[in-house]
Amino acid sequence: MARTIGVIGIGHVGVTTSFNIVTKGLADTLVIIDNKPGWAEAERLDLADSLGGLSTYTEIVANDYSRLRDADVVIFSGGDISVIQNGDRNSEIKSTKAAIDDAAPQLAASGFHGVLIDISNPCDVAVTYWQQQLNLNRNQIIGTGTALDTYRMRRAVAAAMHVNVADVRGFNLGEHGESQFTAWSTVRVNNDPITDLPDFNMKDLNEAARLGGWQIFSAKHYTNFGIATIACEMAGAVMSDAHRIFPCSSYDDDYGVSIGHPTMIGRGGVISHPAMRLTSDEVQKYAHSATTIKENLAKLQALG
Amino acid sequence: MARTIGVIGIGHVGVTTSFNIVTKGLADTLVIIDNKPGWAEAERLDLADSLGGLSTYTEIVANDYSRLRDADVVIFSGGDISVIQNGDRNSEIKSTKAAIDDAAPQLAASGFHGVLIDISNPCDVAVTYWQQQLNLNRNQIIGTGTALDTYRMRRAVAAAMHVNVADVRGFNLGEHGESQFTAWSTVRVNNDPITDLPDFNMKDLNEAARLGGWQIFSAKHYTNFGIATIACEMAGAVMSDAHRIFPCSSYDDDYGVSIGHPTMIGRGGVISHPAMRLTSDEVQKYAHSATTIKENLAKLQALG
Amino acid sequence: MARTIGVIGIGHVGVTTSFNIVTKGLADTLVIIDNKPGWAEAERLDLADSLGGLSTYTEIVANDYSRLRDADVVIFSGGDISVIQNGDRNSEIKSTKAAIDDAAPQLAASGFHGVLIDISNPCDVAVTYWQQQLNLNRNQIIGTGTALDTYRMRRAVAAAMHVNVADVRGFNLGEHGESQFTAWSTVRVNNDPITDLPDFNMKDLNEAARLGGWQIFSAKHYTNFGIATIACEMAGAVMSDAHRIFPCSSYDDDYGVSIGHPTMIGRGGVISHPAMRLTSDEVQKYAHSATTIKENLAKLQALG
Amino acid sequence: MARTIGVIGIGHVGVTTSFNIVTKGLADTLVIIDNKPGWAEAERLDLADSLGGLSTYTEIVANDYSRLRDADVVIFSGGDISVIQNGDRNSEIKSTKAAIDDAAPQLAASGFHGVLIDISNPCDVAVTYWQQQLNLNRNQIIGTGTALDTYRMRRAVAAAMHVNVADVRGFNLGEHGESQFTAWSTVRVNNDPITDLPDFNMKDLNEAARLGGWQIFSAKHYTNFGIATIACEMAGAVMSDAHRIFPCSSYDDDYGVSIGHPTMIGRGGVISHPAMRLTSDEVQKYAHSATTIKENLAKLQALG
Repeated sequence: MARTIGVIGIGHVGVTTSFNIVTKGLADTLVIIDNKPGWAEAERLDLADSLGGLSTYTEIVANDYSRLRDADVVIFSGGDISVIQNGDRNSEIKSTKAAIDDAAPQLAASGFHGVLIDISNPCDVAVTYWQQQLNLNRNQIIGTGTALDTYRMRRAVAAAMHVNVADVRGFNLGEHGESQFTAWSTVRVNNDPITDLPDFNMKDLNEAARLGGWQIFSAKHYTNFGIATIACEMAGAVMSDAHRIFPCSSYDDDYGVSIGHPTMIGRGGVISHPAMRLTSDEVQKYAHSATTIKENLAKLQALG
Repeated sequence: MARTIGVIGIGHVGVTTSFNIVTKGLADTLVIIDNKPGWAEAERLDLADSLGGLSTYTEIVANDYSRLRDADVVIFSGGDISVIQNGDRNSEIKSTKAAIDDAAPQLAASGFHGVLIDISNPCDVAVTYWQQQLNLNRNQIIGTGTALDTYRMRRAVAAAMHVNVADVRGFNLGEHGESQFTAWSTVRVNNDPITDLPDFNMKDLNEAARLGGWQIFSAKHYTNFGIATIACEMAGAVMSDAHRIFPCSSYDDDYGVSIGHPTMIGRGGVISHPAMRLTSDEVQKYAHSATTIKENLAKLQALG
Repeated sequence: MARTIGVIGIGHVGVTTSFNIVTKGLADTLVIIDNKPGWAEAERLDLADSLGGLSTYTEIVANDYSRLRDADVVIFSGGDISVIQNGDRNSEIKSTKAAIDDAAPQLAASGFHGVLIDISNPCDVAVTYWQQQLNLNRNQIIGTGTALDTYRMRRAVAAAMHVNVADVRGFNLGEHGESQFTAWSTVRVNNDPITDLPDFNMKDLNEAARLGGWQIFSAKHYTNFGIATIACEMAGAVMSDAHRIFPCSSYDDDYGVSIGHPTMIGRGGVISHPAMRLTSDEVQKYAHSATTIKENLAKLQALG
Repeated sequence: MARTIGVIGIGHVGVTTSFNIVTKGLADTLVIIDNKPGWAEAERLDLADSLGGLSTYTEIVANDYSRLRDADVVIFSGGDISVIQNGDRNSEIKSTKAAIDDAAPQLAASGFHGVLIDISNPCDVAVTYWQQQLNLNRNQIIGTGTALDTYRMRRAVAAAMHVNVADVRGFNLGEHGESQFTAWSTVRVNNDPITDLPDFNMKDLNEAARLGGWQIFSAKHYTNFGIATIACEMAGAVMSDAHRIFPCSSYDDDYGVSIGHPTMIGRGGVISHPAMRLTSDEVQKYAHSATTIKENLAKLQALG
């Protein structure tokens, strides 16, 4: 009965995601919300200007929480990424918490009962905080998490191995942050374990994958195209009940925290978690990442 | 034999256009070029990060003019729109001229012989200046011009008349700038002349259409989604030799200047110009717009 | 809350429409229904085989009316077009009536309350008969009607006038059958009234437009690509509440019958009917077409 | 410089592939060729009727070999699948050989120098025969081969294991025919080897995958949607030089025959063959399949 997607926080990331939604006809109604005076309305007009060249139609609504009542998906891209330019992650925690504190009661009041996809940072902490703010099933609240890091790893591997990114599979796991890691034991190139390939250089590839994001960030001070694409893929998987696997941020019972790991996504959000088969070294990295997320979560909670 | 599109100048407009090209699979090779150190490579990585979620593949190349030799289309989005925040259009002329002076010899040296679509501002002046810099047929150099204003008019009319933008037709004409105007005699709503409709209020609609762009601009300091969409539509029309009409900037023999007016686009750029049927009032506005463009062109030429 | 489309009658037309839905990701769930033993399941498998190459996902369900309860749109393509090979339209009326008699009670029992789009023939008669069988608002039941004839007219005009079909506008009206006609007073080429153009030859164009369908039919014994495209466009307009105009079959109060005329489509089906501005000759043709539809309707009712 | 695709043989498979090309905007020019009098022109008109509802444009040309001179890809879907209804594969060899004998000299005369993708049957034999008829590099001539069987296996596994087809990877190999087989050692579900999963039942899945095609075939007497999708994926990979892996039919040096095995596809056709890692049982099946292809090839050659 019609698809509705909300995007809360219309900075570079949120609005690029919105453009992707409109231009691909992913939603019948798109609700964009932003606190900055005049901002959502300005973006609504710019997005609507593209309708003249599309064969699909999307109703675009600005700053109306009430239209999120029956939304299938709300994508949260609030907070202020500019604060981490000076490398102080704590200030990002603060700005994201403030944005959630502002949005959560209004979203709850709308009667929203769909799936929330967080793309704000620090992503895993934000997912947990959202779970605490909304009276929804924990499965309905997820984050893009290491799904983006996985895209980057696949791009770096494809370039190094001279194959198409479609033929690189596997997962980056853990915190969407400095402690994330590629679980190389899961990575396959043309269906072969990458670890068996003669020209596999783990150190170089780790560098290439990690540096990718920072290289973008240091020039642009944000990254938006990869994240907008993964957010739309995940939103599509929810709406079509696709039962697809994404290494996104969702609750891990064993570690008691939301963290990037393989998650089957469908209507209702998390459908299940396929068992991970990691090396002991990878398990250790994952555990370390979980600890890091918990520490950051404590910092957020301490903000009061 | 494969589609290649170049985008020179990867600011907000150029890169959003690039994202649209990649995400819709419009090109087999996309060449993005920018002078700012590290910028094109950063955007290349961010755009490439989206490939993990697409079913099409586009090779993305950064800062390599030589790859434009056989490009079907080059979109020029150079210059610095930020300079017009204080309302001084002359500084924009200066920055755009500088960007063309930088790009033109390198583009010429590549052996490029396709169609150049200018989306920099002031668009009509830039189109003429490009025609002077490149040793190409004048038909191969066009600008988005009032095609964007037309999108905005259609959006404003659709909203006011409660119809879909697909059912609003007609043209904005003249300079892509302050002197542009809606040729209301050409506008049809649900196939009826808008001037016959009882609830047609020309003054209100002129305001709504014109203010749209400024409302976006005053919040964002640029507009990118409408322009990225129209640029891709025009590039598509060139590549598929679509013989479609766009009210874009192309040379008008009668007025001796490139200006926004209905232009049939195909491979090779301008195919023909369908005759305009304007009221005498509209003819006058068009003539005034042509004069304005010539004045600005003189200012540009005077820069030496 | 997810888009569901049903297609009842999976002959060449129904299944091509279904393929278009799956391959463009227009629905989250597609329910295909056919009486021929094993047929819907065979097509379900063939359609599902395409999912391996798509970036979108559609659940495909065979022969389950209960899944149509919350369908946004049901497309009816039942009946047996092969019976008109020998030119006996009455036998087509018979086969279509039988198909509706079979499907209607099962569709009603499902609790379906969306929009039904008929693409079976004779289309206008079938629309009326559906309106009599289902306990829905008359606005919820429409047919593709002369929207397809309009596509064909636009294709023929574009070819004759050397323009793109996107720049040909206007309507074919009346019965989707022999008495349909192009309302040339509504047709515009590059925004100009076609009747003003020096090379406009009404007789030749009438022939070209009308013969198009028969030329396809006489080779293939059915036509499926144009109709599948228009059916999906109309289904999309319903789901996104697009308020777009189609010259489709819907109830005309003045003539007391469902007939092809400009109809604004959105959620709920018919939103409104923009006033037609026809010449007296066109009005006469339209009235004649309405009479023809009523006569055929009487034949159908007489079948008991 | 614009994408041109040719489709020779416009039966159900060829024309569905053509529709997919037009409706997704994959080509700037589509050339469809068929011997049956009036057929290609009828399909050209039906395909062109869909242009009125698309935002892309494709020039559609009927029965003009000369337009294939600079085609990027030619898809061959000639022959007469109806002859195998009575289970006599030899008659299919005969009809396909006749179709190639008819098309090959005309295609050669056009100066075609792109990539030929065979989707006629028996596919592997047809690929080899094409290689003998055209004066092209062997890498330029491939067939869809077991890429379609692989789609079917993935669909069957996804259904049985309750996952999305996107998360099922692996290959069917060998002859596109009765001796094809799933190389289960290559199949991964959610990135895990399927052979490690507790609910993996090889016998049931082999049945489900193989029966899928026959279930479609026994109802429809042809299958078209899966094959049209894979043919377009492969054509896209050629045009965009994607360097993607398909288990399609290409020349295997070790066995001296064209056969379905993992093949990296790009501009120029075959880029390389990633090494296969099969169990000894799978190697045996593959060798048996190669022998079968050679036997059928001998039958074809014996036709004189």
